[in-house]
Amino acid sequence: MSTSRLEHDFLGEREIPTDAYYGIQTLRALENFHITGIPLKVEPLFVQALAYVKKAAALANHELGVLPANIAQAIAQACDRVAAGEFDNQFLTDMIQGGAGTSVNMNANEVIANVALEIMGHQKGEYQFCHPNNHVNCSQSTNDAYPTAFRIALSNKLVGYSEVLGELADAFATKGVEFRNVLKMGRTQLQDAVPMSMGDEFRAFATNLREELLRIEDSRRLISEINMGATAIGTGVNAPHGYADLVTKYLRDITGLDLSLAGDLIEATYDTGAYVQLSGVLKRTAVKLSKICNDLRLLSSGPRCGINEINLPPLQPGSSIMPGKVNPVVPEVVNQTAFYVIGADLTVTMAAEGGQLQLNVMEPVISFALFTSISYMTNACRTLREKCVVGITANKEHAENLVRNSIGIVTQLNPVLGYEKSAEIAKEALKTGKSVHDIAVTERQLLTEDKWNEIFTFENLIRPDFIQ
Amino acid sequence: MSTSRLEHDFLGEREIPTDAYYGIQTLRALENFHITGIPLKVEPLFVQALAYVKKAAALANHELGVLPANIAQAIAQACDRVAAGEFDNQFLTDMIQGGAGTSVNMNANEVIANVALEIMGHQKGEYQFCHPNNHVNCSQSTNDAYPTAFRIALSNKLVGYSEVLGELADAFATKGVEFRNVLKMGRTQLQDAVPMSMGDEFRAFATNLREELLRIEDSRRLISEINMGATAIGTGVNAPHGYADLVTKYLRDITGLDLSLAGDLIEATYDTGAYVQLSGVLKRTAVKLSKICNDLRLLSSGPRCGINEINLPPLQPGSSIMPGKVNPVVPEVVNQTAFYVIGADLTVTMAAEGGQLQLNVMEPVISFALFTSISYMTNACRTLREKCVVGITANKEHAENLVRNSIGIVTQLNPVLGYEKSAEIAKEALKTGKSVHDIAVTERQLLTEDKWNEIFTFENLIRPDFIQ
Amino acid sequence: MSTSRLEHDFLGEREIPTDAYYGIQTLRALENFHITGIPLKVEPLFVQALAYVKKAAALANHELGVLPANIAQAIAQACDRVAAGEFDNQFLTDMIQGGAGTSVNMNANEVIANVALEIMGHQKGEYQFCHPNNHVNCSQSTNDAYPTAFRIALSNKLVGYSEVLGELADAFATKGVEFRNVLKMGRTQLQDAVPMSMGDEFRAFATNLREELLRIEDSRRLISEINMGATAIGTGVNAPHGYADLVTKYLRDITGLDLSLAGDLIEATYDTGAYVQLSGVLKRTAVKLSKICNDLRLLSSGPRCGINEINLPPLQPGSSIMPGKVNPVVPEVVNQTAFYVIGADLTVTMAAEGGQLQLNVMEPVISFALFTSISYMTNACRTLREKCVVGITANKEHAENLVRNSIGIVTQLNPVLGYEKSAEIAKEALKTGKSVHDIAVTERQLLTEDKWNEIFTFENLIRPDFIQ
Amino acid sequence: MSTSRLEHDFLGEREIPTDAYYGIQTLRALENFHITGIPLKVEPLFVQALAYVKKAAALANHELGVLPANIAQAIAQACDRVAAGEFDNQFLTDMIQGGAGTSVNMNANEVIANVALEIMGHQKGEYQFCHPNNHVNCSQSTNDAYPTAFRIALSNKLVGYSEVLGELADAFATKGVEFRNVLKMGRTQLQDAVPMSMGDEFRAFATNLREELLRIEDSRRLISEINMGATAIGTGVNAPHGYADLVTKYLRDITGLDLSLAGDLIEATYDTGAYVQLSGVLKRTAVKLSKICNDLRLLSSGPRCGINEINLPPLQPGSSIMPGKVNPVVPEVVNQTAFYVIGADLTVTMAAEGGQLQLNVMEPVISFALFTSISYMTNACRTLREKCVVGITANKEHAENLVRNSIGIVTQLNPVLGYEKSAEIAKEALKTGKSVHDIAVTERQLLTEDKWNEIFTFENLIRPDFIQ
Repeated sequence: MSTSRLEHDFLGEREIPTDAYYGIQTLRALENFHITGIPLKVEPLFVQALAYVKKAAALANHELGVLPANIAQAIAQACDRVAAGEFDNQFLTDMIQGGAGTSVNMNANEVIANVALEIMGHQKGEYQFCHPNNHVNCSQSTNDAYPTAFRIALSNKLVGYSEVLGELADAFATKGVEFRNVLKMGRTQLQDAVPMSMGDEFRAFATNLREELLRIEDSRRLISEINMGATAIGTGVNAPHGYADLVTKYLRDITGLDLSLAGDLIEATYDTGAYVQLSGVLKRTAVKLSKICNDLRLLSSGPRCGINEINLPPLQPGSSIMPGKVNPVVPEVVNQTAFYVIGADLTVTMAAEGGQLQLNVMEPVISFALFTSISYMTNACRTLREKCVVGITANKEHAENLVRNSIGIVTQLNPVLGYEKSAEIAKEALKTGKSVHDIAVTERQLLTEDKWNEIFTFENLIRPDFIQ
Repeated sequence: MSTSRLEHDFLGEREIPTDAYYGIQTLRALENFHITGIPLKVEPLFVQALAYVKKAAALANHELGVLPANIAQAIAQACDRVAAGEFDNQFLTDMIQGGAGTSVNMNANEVIANVALEIMGHQKGEYQFCHPNNHVNCSQSTNDAYPTAFRIALSNKLVGYSEVLGELADAFATKGVEFRNVLKMGRTQLQDAVPMSMGDEFRAFATNLREELLRIEDSRRLISEINMGATAIGTGVNAPHGYADLVTKYLRDITGLDLSLAGDLIEATYDTGAYVQLSGVLKRTAVKLSKICNDLRLLSSGPRCGINEINLPPLQPGSSIMPGKVNPVVPEVVNQTAFYVIGADLTVTMAAEGGQLQLNVMEPVISFALFTSISYMTNACRTLREKCVVGITANKEHAENLVRNSIGIVTQLNPVLGYEKSAEIAKEALKTGKSVHDIAVTERQLLTEDKWNEIFTFENLIRPDFIQ
Repeated sequence: MSTSRLEHDFLGEREIPTDAYYGIQTLRALENFHITGIPLKVEPLFVQALAYVKKAAALANHELGVLPANIAQAIAQACDRVAAGEFDNQFLTDMIQGGAGTSVNMNANEVIANVALEIMGHQKGEYQFCHPNNHVNCSQSTNDAYPTAFRIALSNKLVGYSEVLGELADAFATKGVEFRNVLKMGRTQLQDAVPMSMGDEFRAFATNLREELLRIEDSRRLISEINMGATAIGTGVNAPHGYADLVTKYLRDITGLDLSLAGDLIEATYDTGAYVQLSGVLKRTAVKLSKICNDLRLLSSGPRCGINEINLPPLQPGSSIMPGKVNPVVPEVVNQTAFYVIGADLTVTMAAEGGQLQLNVMEPVISFALFTSISYMTNACRTLREKCVVGITANKEHAENLVRNSIGIVTQLNPVLGYEKSAEIAKEALKTGKSVHDIAVTERQLLTEDKWNEIFTFENLIRPDFIQ
Repeated sequence: MSTSRLEHDFLGEREIPTDAYYGIQTLRALENFHITGIPLKVEPLFVQALAYVKKAAALANHELGVLPANIAQAIAQACDRVAAGEFDNQFLTDMIQGGAGTSVNMNANEVIANVALEIMGHQKGEYQFCHPNNHVNCSQSTNDAYPTAFRIALSNKLVGYSEVLGELADAFATKGVEFRNVLKMGRTQLQDAVPMSMGDEFRAFATNLREELLRIEDSRRLISEINMGATAIGTGVNAPHGYADLVTKYLRDITGLDLSLAGDLIEATYDTGAYVQLSGVLKRTAVKLSKICNDLRLLSSGPRCGINEINLPPLQPGSSIMPGKVNPVVPEVVNQTAFYVIGADLTVTMAAEGGQLQLNVMEPVISFALFTSISYMTNACRTLREKCVVGITANKEHAENLVRNSIGIVTQLNPVLGYEKSAEIAKEALKTGKSVHDIAVTERQLLTEDKWNEIFTFENLIRPDFIQ
C-alpha cells in the first residue's frame, strides 16, 4: 500500500505522505521556512479561527449559490472538527513565513479540504470533489481570510489574558485592604517624602492595572473590524454580490464575537493599525508591570541593608554561594518578560511600517510577536499573583519606625510653621541626626507637645487632615 | 542703582538680576541643567497651562480660606498675563531637567510671584507679601501642579495637530475623487495583483489617517484626568478639605477642557500610562504616514525605470550632479520625521518604566519627547499636504497601459475558468511575454471575445462585478 | 521500589523522581518559572559550556587543594558526559527565569553532582559524597559561573552563524561575477540615476555583509573576557588564592577559546556591555539584510508593472486567489526575521539598563534574546542563500532597455555640456517623452553622433570613463 | 540700490536677498523643510567639514586639470573662511530634510561659490565665473560629498565627547581611591550579598566607562572610511581619473584625520553601517551611564528610610512642598538623557533600514540623531562630573554599621562551616533578628572568637582572603 500520494500545483508535482491532511503547498512552506522552528499549532486559537473563517465562507458561498450544498456541508463539518482541535498537529507551518500568510491560509485550506473529502467518502487528494482553492478558499484571498482569522484568535486570546490580569489586580487590591493600617514612608525620587498607608500603595497597584483592562477592551473593539469579502486587495474581485456582509454575519454567529465589516476594504486590507494599537497596549501594561515589580524589589530590599518594608514569599534558595539569601525571583522574571514584550512591540512597529501598497506582507511576524507577547504576559501575571503577591507580608513595626525617625514628616508642619522654617528644621535634623520632634518641640518650642500630637496621629499621617 | 537683588533658599543666598521675574530656584536650575539647550519657552502652551494651574489654585485656596483675597487676586491677575504670553522669555529652564519638574514648577511660581508683587505695588523679591512657595504654590506640590499643567498643554497642542492631520486626510480624499476613473494595477508584495481605481488608493490613505483622529481623541480623554490636590504623593497632605474638587472645577472653567479628578490620587501621582498611550498613538500615526510616503515614493518612481503612475510636484533640483533629476523630497522628510517620532516613543517608554515608588521622576524627558513629536508631526503633515499631496497628478494613460499588459488580470477569469487553468495561462504569459487575452481568447479559445469584453470593462476592472 | 528520593534545601524538603539527575533547586525552578515554555536544552551549546565551566573549576579547585582528587575526578568525568550532550534532557529550566541565572547554575550543579555520584558508585542524592554547592559549585557563584558559560556558548554559537553569513556573502559575490556584464539603471531615492553594472550591485551586497564578519569577530573578542573567580560580587570571597587565573587557564584549554580574565572583577560581574555590543552587531546585520531583501523585492517587482530586472526562484504559489502569482517569499521572511532581531536588541538594551549595583539580574532574558537572535539570523541567512540568492537570474535585455530609454543617462553629458544644458535636455525629455539622444544629437546638435557613441559605449556606461 | 538678485535653476527663477551668500537652491530648501526648526549652523563642525571637502575637491580638480587655477584658488580660500566659521549664519537648512542631503550640499556649494566670487572680485550670483554645481561641486555628488563631510564632523565631534567622558571616568577613579577604606555591603538583586570596599565600587564605574573610550575609537576608525570620487552612485561618473585617491589624500592633509578611501564605492555610497555602529556605541554608553546613575540614586536614597551610604552634593531645593528635601537631580537628568539617546538609536536604526538601492536617502535624520546624541551625552557627562561625582561624600560609619549588622557576612563562613550550616545560621538570624556572630560564636559555638576575628577583619571583609 502506498505511503504517499501525488499532488501538484502550478510549479510542479510532489509526494505527500498518505496520512497527511495538509497538501503540496503546505509541504512547500515546510521546506521554505525554517526560522523559528515554532509551528502554527502552538496557537490552537489561531487554527480554530481559521476553521471558523472557512466555515463562514462555505455557508455564505452556498447561500449565494457559488458552492454546492454537499461540498459546503462537508467543509462546514470539517471546519467544526478542525476548530475542535482534532487536527492541530497538521498545522506545521513555521510561525514566521514569507508570503503574507498564504502558507498558513493554504495549510488550512488543504487540511479542511482533505478532512471534507474523507467526510464525503473520498480519498485525501481527490481535489476534483473538494478543492483547497476553488472550494475551501472560495470567494476568499489570503489577504482577507488570514487577517480575519488572526483577529478572531487575538480577540479570544485577549479574553484569557484579561482575566488573569484582572485577578492580579484583585490580588493587589486585597493586599491594599490587608495593609491599610500599616504606616510607611512615601518616597519620591528615592528620597523620603511624606508618610502614607501601605494599603494605599498596594491599592494603587490595583488601580494602575485595572486601567489596562479598559485599554484591552479598546483593542478588542479595534481588532473586531474585519475585511472578509475584500479578497485580493479590497476590490472584492471574485466574490459574489452580498458576500462580504453575509460572511461577516455568519462569522459573528459562529464566533460569538461582535465583528463588523470595515467600511473601506481597500484600506482595511493593508492596514495594520489595530495591531500597532494592541501591541502598544501590551507594551503599556508591560511598562506598568515592570514599574510595579521594581517597586516590590525595592520595598523588599535588605533584609538588613535595604528598605525591608515588605517580605516576598521565599520560593527558592537565592544563591549558589551565599547561604540563606532569598531573592525576589518572581518580580525579576516579570521584569524580564516586560522587556521581551517591549522589544516585541518594536518588531510589530517595524513590520507595520514595512507594509507596501495594497498589502502588509509582514503580518506573520506581527502575529508571532503578538501571540507570544500575550502568552508571556498571561504567564507573567499568573506567576506574579500566585507565587508572589498573595504571599506578601508587611514588616509593620519596621515600616512605622522608619516614619517616626524620618525628617520627611516635617512637611506636616508646613501649614503651621511655613515652608522656610520647616526647611530649617529639616536641615538641622539632617546635619545633627536629631529628630524633627526634638528640634521643633523641645529645643525651639515652635509648637506645643499637644499640637504635635494632634498633627502626628496615626490616622493623620496615613490620611492627612489639614491642620493650621 | 542696583542691577541685582539678593534671594535665598535653604541652600544659601544668590544674586538675581533686577529685571528677572524668575528667582533663585530658577537660577539654580539654569546652572544645573545644560543638556538640550532648548528652553521651556519654546512651548508657550506649557507656560500658559502652568499659569492656568496657578490661577485655579489661587482661586480655590482663597475660597477655602487659606489665601487672603488681595494675594489671591494679584496671583490670578499675574497668571492671566503669564498665560497671555507676556512673560514667556522668563521661562528658561532646559526642557530636560532632574527633579521631576520641580524647576519648571518653581520657575512658574517665582515668575508669577514677582509679577503679582509688582501688581500689588511691591518690588520683585519681597516675598513676604507673596511667596513662590507659600502663596503661589499653596496647596500644591510639583507632583500635582506639573503633570496637570503638562496634560492641559498636551491637550491643547493636540487640537492643532489634529486639525492639520485632518486637513491632510481631506487632501488625500480630494485626490481620491479626482483619480476615481484612473485604472491602475493593484500590487501586493510588490508583485502585480489585480486592477483597481487610483481614486480608491488615495481615498484609502484618507481613511487610514482619519482613524488617527479618533485615536487622538481617545488620548485627549485619558490625559484629561488630573491629580490636583494630590500634593506630594497623593495623600493630599497640606491641602485643605474640598480643595481637590474645587481646584479641578476652577481649572475646567479656566481652560474650557473637560478635566476630571483622578479617583485614586496615589496612583495618579506616579502613573504615566496616559503618556505612554499618547506616545503610542503618535507612533501609530507615524507608522502610517511612513507607509503612505513609502507608497508615494514607489508610485512616483522612475520616471522611465520605475512605476511612474503618479507625479509628485517638483520642489527643487534633486541632485547636485544629475541634471533634471527631481526627487520625492517631501515624502522623504516625512519618513524621517516618522523615524524620529518612533524613536521618541521609545524614550517615553523607557522613562515611564523608570518611575519608582510614589513618583515618576523622568517626566521632563517625557514632556520633551511628546511636545517635540507633536510639533514635528504637525509640521510634517502640513508640509506633506501643502508641498506634495495637493499637487500630485496621475499618469493615467501609462497606469492603464500597465494594467492592460499585465498578467494580473487573469484573476478576473477565476470564476469562469477556475484557479488552475488561470494559473496555466499566467505561467505561459510570463514565459512567452504574450498577453493574457491572446492566450485565453485567441489561442486557447477558453472564452469568447464577447465574454472577455464583458469581464474586462473599465468599470468592472475598477469595481469588479462577479461574473461566472 | 521507590520512584522518588527526598531532597532538602534551606526552605524545606521535596520529592524528586528517582531517575531525575536534577535536584530540589531545579524542581523549584520548574515550579516557579513558566514564561516561555522553552527549556534550556534548546541551547545545547549553553549546557555544554556550563559543563566546561564546572570541569575547569573542579580541576583548579583540586590543584589548589580545596577539592579531593576523587571528587574532582568524578566531577570532571561527569562534565565530559554532560558536555557531550548525554544529559541535555535534564536541563529543563525555562529560558527566562528570575534569580540572575541561579536556577540554571543549580540545574547544572545538581545534574553534574548526581552524574558524578553514580560515577563514584553512589546513589543520586547522596550529596554527602559530592554536593552541588560545596563541591560542584566550589569556589564559584552563579555570578561568575553563569556569565562565563553564557559567553563561551555565545562565542561558539557565533562561529556557526559567521560561517553561514559568510556563505551568503559569497553567494552574492558569485552573482556579482555572473551579472558583471548586465547593464542596468542605478537608482537613488527610487528615481532613475545613472547606469551601472548589475554585477557591481550584487558584489556590493557581498561587501556589505562581509564587513559584518569583522564585527562579529570584534564581539567575540569582547565576550571572551570572563570573570571566573569573582564569585558573588567580584571580591573573590570563598575562592582560594590563585584560583581565578588557574581556572581561566583550564577553561582556555578545555574550550580552545582565547578567554581572558577581566582586570576589574567587581565591574566585570555586573557589566553587560559586551552583550549590548553583540546585540548591536546582530542588529546591524539585520538592518543590512533587511535593506538587501528590500532591494531584491524591488528589483524583482512586476513582472509587468514593476522594475523586473531580476527573477527570484519561484518557491511556491504566491496567492490563494491570484493564479500564477509568485512572491518573493524568502526575502520577505528575512525582513521579518530582521524585525524580530531588532526588537530583541531592544530587549537586551532594557535588560542591560535594568542592572543594579553589583549584579545585572536580567541576564537570563539577555541570554534568551541573544541565543534566539543568533539562531534566527543563522536560519535566515541560510534560507536566503539556498532558496533565493543562488537561483536569481537577470532579465538582461529588459534591464538594458530601461537604461537606453532613460533620461538618467544625461548625467554622462555633464562634462561635455555642463550641468545646466544637460538639465534642460532632461526636462524636455520628461515633458515630451523623447529620448535624450534625439534631443541632444538630432534636434539640438549639441554633440555629434560619434561623440555620443564614444560616451555611451556599454563599457563606459558600466564603468564610466571621464570624457570631456 | 537693489536688495535682491535674481537666480535660476531648472525649475525657474527666484529673488535672493543681496546680502545672502546662499542661493536659489538653499532658498527652496528653506521653503520646503520646516520640521525641527533647528538650522544646520548649530553644528559648526559640520559646516567646517563641508568646507574641508569642497577645498580638497577644488585642489584635486585643479591638479587633474578640470578646474582652472584661479577658480580653484578662490574656492579654496573661500573654504578656509567658511571652515573658520565666518559664514555659519548662512547655513540655515533645517537639520532634517528630504533629498538625502542635497540641500545641505547645495547650501555649501552656493555659499562657497558666492564667497569665492567676491574673492575673485565679482558679485554674488555671477555664477558664470564660479558656479555652485560646475565648479564648487565639480567631480562630486551630494552622495559622496555629504557623507564624507558628515563623517569628518562626527569624528571631530567624538574627540570632544571622548575627552569629557574620560574626565568623568577619572572622577570616578579618584573617588575610588578616596573611598578605598570605606567598608560597605555589596548587593545583588537588591538583597544584601557580601561586604566590599566602596572604593572598589567607584573604581568599577571608572572601569566601566573607560571601556567606552575604546569603543568610541573603534567607531572613529569605521567612520573614517569615505567615498569621495564615488559621485552619484559609486561608479565615479563625471570624476576624472585618479580623482578619488587624490581628493582623499588632500582631505587627509586638510583634516589631519586618518581617512581612507572605501574599497567598494558602490557599497560605500549607500552603506550606513558605520552610523548604526556608532549609534550603538552611544547607546551602550547611555545604558551604562543610566545604570550608574540608578546606582548613585539608590546608594544616596534616604536620608533616613533608604540606603544612605553616600551623599550627593545638594544643588537645589528638591521640592516645592517638602521642606529640606534634596533630590539627586543630576543623576536624574543623566538618566533622562540616556533615554533620549536610546530613542535616537532607534531612529538611526529605522533610517538605516529604510535605505533603498544605490543610496540611503534617510541620512539627514541619521545626522540629526547622531549629532544631537553626541551633544547631549557630552553635556550629561560634563554635568555628572562637575555637579555630582566630584562632590560625593561617603557615610562611612553608617555604611560599616550596615555590614556589621548584616546577615550577608555569613558567606564568609562557608569555607569553615559549609553552605548548609551557614544557611541555617542565616535563616535563624533573619527569623530572630539576632546577629550572625551571636548565633555562630556565642550560642552554637561553631567557631571560636579568635577564628571569628581572624575572618572578620576590616581588610578581609573588603578584600577577602580564603580562610578554611
